Amino acid sequence: MKKGYLLLFLVFSALLSGLASAQSVSIERVNPTNWWVGMKNPNVQLLIHGPGAGTLTYTIAYPGVKLVKCSTVENPNYAFLDLSIAASTKPGRLQIVGKKAGQTVTQSWELRARDKSPKAQGVTAADFIYLAMPDRFANGDTTNDKFASLRDPNMDRANPFFRHGGDLAGAAKRIPYLKDLGVTAIWFTPLIENNQPLTNEGGTMRASYHGYGFTDQYNIDKRFGGNAAYKAYVQQAHAAGLKVVQDAVYNHVGNTHWILQDLPMKSWLHQWPTYTNTSYRYQSITDPHGAQIDRKVTLDGWFVPFLPDLNQSNPYVANYLIENAIWCVEYFGIDAWRIDTYMYNDQPFMNRCNAALLAEYPRLHIFGESSVNNVVDQSYYTRNTIGFPFKSNQPGGLDFVLESAMLDALKQPISYDGGVQRFYQTLAQDAVYQDPTKLVTFLDNHDHDRYLSVIGDDLAKYKMGLTWLLTTRGIPSMYYGTEILMKNFKDPTDAEVRRDFPGGWPGDKEDKFNAAGRNARENEAFDFVKKLATYRRDHPVLHTGKLMQFLPENGFYVYFRYDATGTVMVASNTSDKPAMLPTARFAERTRGFTKARNVLTGENLASIASLQLPAKTAVVMELQK
Amino acid sequence: MKKGYLLLFLVFSALLSGLASAQSVSIERVNPTNWWVGMKNPNVQLLIHGPGAGTLTYTIAYPGVKLVKCSTVENPNYAFLDLSIAASTKPGRLQIVGKKAGQTVTQSWELRARDKSPKAQGVTAADFIYLAMPDRFANGDTTNDKFASLRDPNMDRANPFFRHGGDLAGAAKRIPYLKDLGVTAIWFTPLIENNQPLTNEGGTMRASYHGYGFTDQYNIDKRFGGNAAYKAYVQQAHAAGLKVVQDAVYNHVGNTHWILQDLPMKSWLHQWPTYTNTSYRYQSITDPHGAQIDRKVTLDGWFVPFLPDLNQSNPYVANYLIENAIWCVEYFGIDAWRIDTYMYNDQPFMNRCNAALLAEYPRLHIFGESSVNNVVDQSYYTRNTIGFPFKSNQPGGLDFVLESAMLDALKQPISYDGGVQRFYQTLAQDAVYQDPTKLVTFLDNHDHDRYLSVIGDDLAKYKMGLTWLLTTRGIPSMYYGTEILMKNFKDPTDAEVRRDFPGGWPGDKEDKFNAAGRNARENEAFDFVKKLATYRRDHPVLHTGKLMQFLPENGFYVYFRYDATGTVMVASNTSDKPAMLPTARFAERTRGFTKARNVLTGENLASIASLQLPAKTAVVMELQK
Repeated sequence: MKKGYLLLFLVFSALLSGLASAQSVSIERVNPTNWWVGMKNPNVQLLIHGPGAGTLTYTIAYPGVKLVKCSTVENPNYAFLDLSIAASTKPGRLQIVGKKAGQTVTQSWELRARDKSPKAQGVTAADFIYLAMPDRFANGDTTNDKFASLRDPNMDRANPFFRHGGDLAGAAKRIPYLKDLGVTAIWFTPLIENNQPLTNEGGTMRASYHGYGFTDQYNIDKRFGGNAAYKAYVQQAHAAGLKVVQDAVYNHVGNTHWILQDLPMKSWLHQWPTYTNTSYRYQSITDPHGAQIDRKVTLDGWFVPFLPDLNQSNPYVANYLIENAIWCVEYFGIDAWRIDTYMYNDQPFMNRCNAALLAEYPRLHIFGESSVNNVVDQSYYTRNTIGFPFKSNQPGGLDFVLESAMLDALKQPISYDGGVQRFYQTLAQDAVYQDPTKLVTFLDNHDHDRYLSVIGDDLAKYKMGLTWLLTTRGIPSMYYGTEILMKNFKDPTDAEVRRDFPGGWPGDKEDKFNAAGRNARENEAFDFVKKLATYRRDHPVLHTGKLMQFLPENGFYVYFRYDATGTVMVASNTSDKPAMLPTARFAERTRGFTKARNVLTGENLASIASLQLPAKTAVVMELQK
Repeated sequence: MKKGYLLLFLVFSALLSGLASAQSVSIERVNPTNWWVGMKNPNVQLLIHGPGAGTLTYTIAYPGVKLVKCSTVENPNYAFLDLSIAASTKPGRLQIVGKKAGQTVTQSWELRARDKSPKAQGVTAADFIYLAMPDRFANGDTTNDKFASLRDPNMDRANPFFRHGGDLAGAAKRIPYLKDLGVTAIWFTPLIENNQPLTNEGGTMRASYHGYGFTDQYNIDKRFGGNAAYKAYVQQAHAAGLKVVQDAVYNHVGNTHWILQDLPMKSWLHQWPTYTNTSYRYQSITDPHGAQIDRKVTLDGWFVPFLPDLNQSNPYVANYLIENAIWCVEYFGIDAWRIDTYMYNDQPFMNRCNAALLAEYPRLHIFGESSVNNVVDQSYYTRNTIGFPFKSNQPGGLDFVLESAMLDALKQPISYDGGVQRFYQTLAQDAVYQDPTKLVTFLDNHDHDRYLSVIGDDLAKYKMGLTWLLTTRGIPSMYYGTEILMKNFKDPTDAEVRRDFPGGWPGDKEDKFNAAGRNARENEAFDFVKKLATYRRDHPVLHTGKLMQFLPENGFYVYFRYDATGTVMVASNTSDKPAMLPTARFAERTRGFTKARNVLTGENLASIASLQLPAKTAVVMELQK
């Protein structure tokens, strides 16, 4: 309810600010902060902000650059300049000149040459993504832990809700650790500036350490090291053969985002007469019988009270977000694009945005977060085969439905439609996707209970689930710390599943980045992930090989990945008793093979006529003639 | 395992029989038993059976009829004659003449004129279907209860697994009862001859009273009254404005079907080296990752040991089944076509069969039984919008997924995704169907626990679920006895849910076909169904009006049916406490209306600004300006 008043205030202050600055004019901000020559799309729209910026008449004199249109909006402190940049344009600094009776303002703005370093390499099923929260992963530079000048000047590792000081410098030192583990891509929760104050959530003061409350899309948070550190991180990662996935947020911004201090127009945000939260319900979006109000609350309701909801059907907002996305890829050189709260965004906008990114970067992979409970709704947010009136162009997506199914397969007892049948039956519905191998699979993430806790801290189940993750279809991702058996439920708070990686901070008593700092069980887990991830990395059959799965029987589930170069058989015994499994039923894939090598144990099997399967174990075998 | 031997025996006996009859030839059977002039498709394939029938050279001399082709198969006792019947052909009897050295056999066969009586009227969302088991509904002719000449000569009402004597004469007497109840269509479980012996199932001797083991597709079982009684029933039903749905079985026949005594060829059936039951698992059919063997076991495995599985990819089998389907519609004049075990049939065959029926009878509705647990698999067996490699042409289908969802809505407590959310969320996935209004909805059937028992014998829930059934999208169907509160679980056996309708037998102590024979609670139930069904019958907005549903909140679920003529609001309170529900959120549909009439109580509501909803109640309101 409070939010309603805040909005009125923001709009009112914007108008006041416009009136107050009618006399003196200046340009305080130009976004994008720079652009490049040689982009495929010659057009870019500049947002110009400053007192009276919307009252000026603009000119730009630079060879190849044409000022096509200047638009003004409700708030006189904004102008939007549409530029067209000819292919022949040379890099350099141009001057944006604004004039009004007796006054001239100029603002320098750079057109850079595009660098040739690798960027937008995409992630595919050949990759293994590691998801880390930068504030909680490793602290490499203690001088940037906190800043008195920021709205939240705190850093306190003893407080689970405060910032802990993790940064890109710390993450950069652990690139060899990730490479050693067999990881091929890193996905950080957002690094963009969150200069938010502490928020009071149910009596608890919380910092914006999670990163989902942007306050300036053109700055990396300086507590993570700022733009320079991110650029350096990407270069080091690329040099080491590690790709970088950026976490994008289009749906909302932090409520202290600079633009909220002086809104360009009321329709920049989704405004409501009284504060309205999203229902988090997605069914009405795809429901042919759905009601407008349900769709509107889902899409235009705010995610939480302190994250105002952007109105992406406003073309200025859309341009602003799309250009920032392209700017991030080009400026930092990142490889793939994870999109937060994908399903809460305006979907025609998402298609425009995806298309704009893919036009510039055809290999860039895009995968959004749409947390739904069924494949029909999930398919809606990616390229699908269902005759929905709206057709998404998103290449990928996070596979929430398979996450839930894999966990059920580990948690539930064997039953007619439960247990491992859930895993099998979910994959069996893949016909709804144009290409299910482009979905990003996972067993948990920063918003969910940690995997190990969900499966009852059972190391056998832990290995079985990770084996599935790393051998079935899709692009696997793993949440940081899973490899060292970090666990916890979100109850009482999500901070429980976002604990610091032990050893990431100078002076940490334990250092689990090193084998010597891990106990025997942790090393067993680490070595297991490493062995499997390395095998996967080095065997294209697990990237591009076809999947064939057989109907699970009595808790036994067998599938194959196969191509012209080889066949890998994954035989799972989800029961709690060891068993001998005859393989005659799998002849369609075992035909021509007589022997096998157990990839995880190194053991050679002289015959595959039947398989000895330990309890709660997925055996991975390379079939041999 | 025994079945393997049976098959070998059958094939062997067929060959022996062929050899034995090489000397003397005769024609004992022609199927179809007759045909008609003036069909859209001029072609018909006759199956000729008799000793040496495949060794003859055939001629037919009848104006307009051309014998296009005569085919012989493995067993010399069969010939298949392809006829082409010109549009100008006159009705009459033709002679099929077969000759071989020194011998001539002739068989008379009739080409009838098509009668003009109503047939193939279809069922639509304007209908309300009543599903009855003829053996258990009413016995109108005690002279046909049992026949010593049949393989099962028994009739014993005291034995739940034996035949009880119900028949078409009994059902015909209850046409006024169904009309009074508001029913517009009757669907009987199969009436076709099941001259099967008792089968021993786990030590219990069971009769084929259910009707799914055909022994001659051209005869109605004489214990139901035979062909004449069925024809008479359809005429009486039509005269009363009641449509008739026939229950078709293509997947299998009874193991004493006449053709099994002398198989035309081995491939008439799905043959296995050892007896193989279907897995009853459907996922592999739609699974892009599925294995051939899983598909084969599902499709070609036998439904139960005593129901041999027909091989519909054998063109002779396909023609035989398709022509019998057309023959039934034309001969008996039935209106719609329910298909047993739809998903176990060869799907290209099903498309051919559906297309053939619809070509002759464009309004005929076809709805198959595919008992699956999700909308993706369900949509595969009807006209859908998913990019499956195979596209079904079936117009309808039984909505098993919605049955399960509606029952969950009644059984489960209110929760985030449970309870009434299940009902809402299932309808919200209707985008997978080309036309979900053509699905046949239900709350139970002859194979499931009875509705009233599933919902804990709770009359409030009973009314709420029936209200949903009769006001949401689809073609509602109701299992016999639901209206008089028949109940039971399938445990210990399915006979528990197939009890006799009290009053259907001469001398029954209770007669629940009459109000006087029903107790107060039963009359309350009967009157409720009648009131709602009658309202539905008389208000096209509940047939063809659009559905709009709103996100359920706190167990309250509101939807509307609406068209240019009016708006019906259905507001459900699934909680166990009465509540006042504000209606502002439903403005998209209530706008322009101020008052309402409660359809079930007759009460007039002076305002619809908020609604008083009793616990566990769905209120149906006709909105008024």
